[in-house]
Amino acid sequence: MRTIDWNDGAVVIVDQTALPHEVRHVHLTDVDGLVNAIQRLAVRGAPALGAAGALGVVLAVDEAARYEWDDIRRDAVIARLRASRPTAVNLARGVDRGVAAMGDGRDAVLATALDALDEDATANRAMGGRGADLLAELCPGVDGLRIQTHCNAGSLACVEWGTALGVVRSLHERGGVGRVYADETRPLLQGSRLTAWELQEMGVEYRVVVDGAGPSLIAQGEVDVVIVGADRVAANGDVANKIGTYPLALAAARSGVPFVVAAPESTVDHATPDGASIEIETRDGDEVLEIGDVRVAPRGALAHNPAFDITPADLITALVTEARVVRLSAGARP
Amino acid sequence: MRTIDWNDGAVVIVDQTALPHEVRHVHLTDVDGLVNAIQRLAVRGAPALGAAGALGVVLAVDEAARYEWDDIRRDAVIARLRASRPTAVNLARGVDRGVAAMGDGRDAVLATALDALDEDATANRAMGGRGADLLAELCPGVDGLRIQTHCNAGSLACVEWGTALGVVRSLHERGGVGRVYADETRPLLQGSRLTAWELQEMGVEYRVVVDGAGPSLIAQGEVDVVIVGADRVAANGDVANKIGTYPLALAAARSGVPFVVAAPESTVDHATPDGASIEIETRDGDEVLEIGDVRVAPRGALAHNPAFDITPADLITALVTEARVVRLSAGARP
Repeated sequence: MRTIDWNDGAVVIVDQTALPHEVRHVHLTDVDGLVNAIQRLAVRGAPALGAAGALGVVLAVDEAARYEWDDIRRDAVIARLRASRPTAVNLARGVDRGVAAMGDGRDAVLATALDALDEDATANRAMGGRGADLLAELCPGVDGLRIQTHCNAGSLACVEWGTALGVVRSLHERGGVGRVYADETRPLLQGSRLTAWELQEMGVEYRVVVDGAGPSLIAQGEVDVVIVGADRVAANGDVANKIGTYPLALAAARSGVPFVVAAPESTVDHATPDGASIEIETRDGDEVLEIGDVRVAPRGALAHNPAFDITPADLITALVTEARVVRLSAGARP
Repeated sequence: MRTIDWNDGAVVIVDQTALPHEVRHVHLTDVDGLVNAIQRLAVRGAPALGAAGALGVVLAVDEAARYEWDDIRRDAVIARLRASRPTAVNLARGVDRGVAAMGDGRDAVLATALDALDEDATANRAMGGRGADLLAELCPGVDGLRIQTHCNAGSLACVEWGTALGVVRSLHERGGVGRVYADETRPLLQGSRLTAWELQEMGVEYRVVVDGAGPSLIAQGEVDVVIVGADRVAANGDVANKIGTYPLALAAARSGVPFVVAAPESTVDHATPDGASIEIETRDGDEVLEIGDVRVAPRGALAHNPAFDITPADLITALVTEARVVRLSAGARP
């Protein structure tokens, strides 16, 4: 099962908002529906957003044909898709890849998008193996690694397999995982809803912890290595990832615990010089103030809800991609 | 209105689990009820727990008289109260203070307990003024401080006024507060439920943020000073406080932002040498896995739920009490 795929004229996604209680497939036949799914995080995760961007261009081309749009209207719809979430570079890159094929006709756009999906799946598996090697190297002599992760960088964030959780998956296949600590990842609980679900499916022993507990677990020696995904890697190695990543990196650095980022090469953005140049999406405060349908804060309360934070390169032991390992804290640059 | 008080043979508390939606007073007439209220966090916060400990001894003495308990049974009930939460030293201290007065009869125990309440209120106001002076000194030339806090160290955690939030209250009376960032404080949301409610009552501008967002707000220069309460201060200056405090201290240290702990002298425990010697309460994992009545994690998921973390003294700019300022990161010891 792929998290995002193309089937019979539609983008088909596993709706991440329905998990862990239900595996619901949603068929999206127009760009408006896809943008809505992206913005409500029914499809999410940098690699999956890259796939959504490329497949979305196919939808736009098909809609343009169906409703006889002129190019200006079609391109405006594509631009809206491209800007629907700003932080992950993969979305814009996926769109650009689809657009670059438009001159060769609709089927070329679809073929390009499907190539992008296959490449993501292939890259993830290569990254998984390379990352599993890296974790073993960084934690010599440890039998059954205790791994901390944040948010969901698993198969649900990608076409399949996963990035950071793909590394865990590969290591688990080798029998090398002792326990995973999964941060719940407020406000939208991708850790307790999605990562816990994936770990359970894998048969990995895990514990969910609140986000505030991760750093002290590291300080207490309960964690051998931290591994997270990325939404964008800047040219200097700074990493944008889900809000709450930075405190884990701070704690890992203080305790001498390796902190690893796993992301495909498509997440490295050489056009962005550093973390300060990355646009951080600010989302609706109600995601913080309401949980489910329950208002937790007093009437009239306001929240500030940045969706990502920046981890500086000097706190990152290594970036692992499908192609290489970059020792960021040692001064290497992607 | 006091958060905890004595009235007509009963301990009267503001039930913290009903806030922010309802200000509910609960009358507790026996130790079992008080222990239950303590364990479900209807009464919480180190200073308020100290008051509960002292008043609880009055309840035990009254029950012993009412039901003709022997001393063994009475003392067992008191011991159970004393151990009902392990991390905050104030609870055991409050109990011990009440017990020390038992030889002088029931009215002496009550008088001692009421003295403890008055002393807490007086100490908080003194701490507030001293702390407000300290913040102004630590942030020279800043007009309208932007303050980050965690959990609730306000009037709801004390008899009245508050510790860390009492300092904010005192500074606000001087017109010195620009904005407060209140961490929501998972799992039990004391920040979004209680601190937000208190700040709203005070008329202070504030924003609720998820716990994972605090450190990056500090890194981005959005915070002038961090101030938190404490459940126990060890002899070497290490501080136990609500889980999620440590990452703020890490971030503040990296960014050169002052990190202040406000706690009464009764929270300083010279019998505990360091943070590693402090017992950290582990609470039910369902506090993490369920929010309200909604299960957020998959069936079968397990959580690890430590209620406190340890912030080492070297990350704490200063401890402020009702009596003094201790510059911990500069090497002073409480």
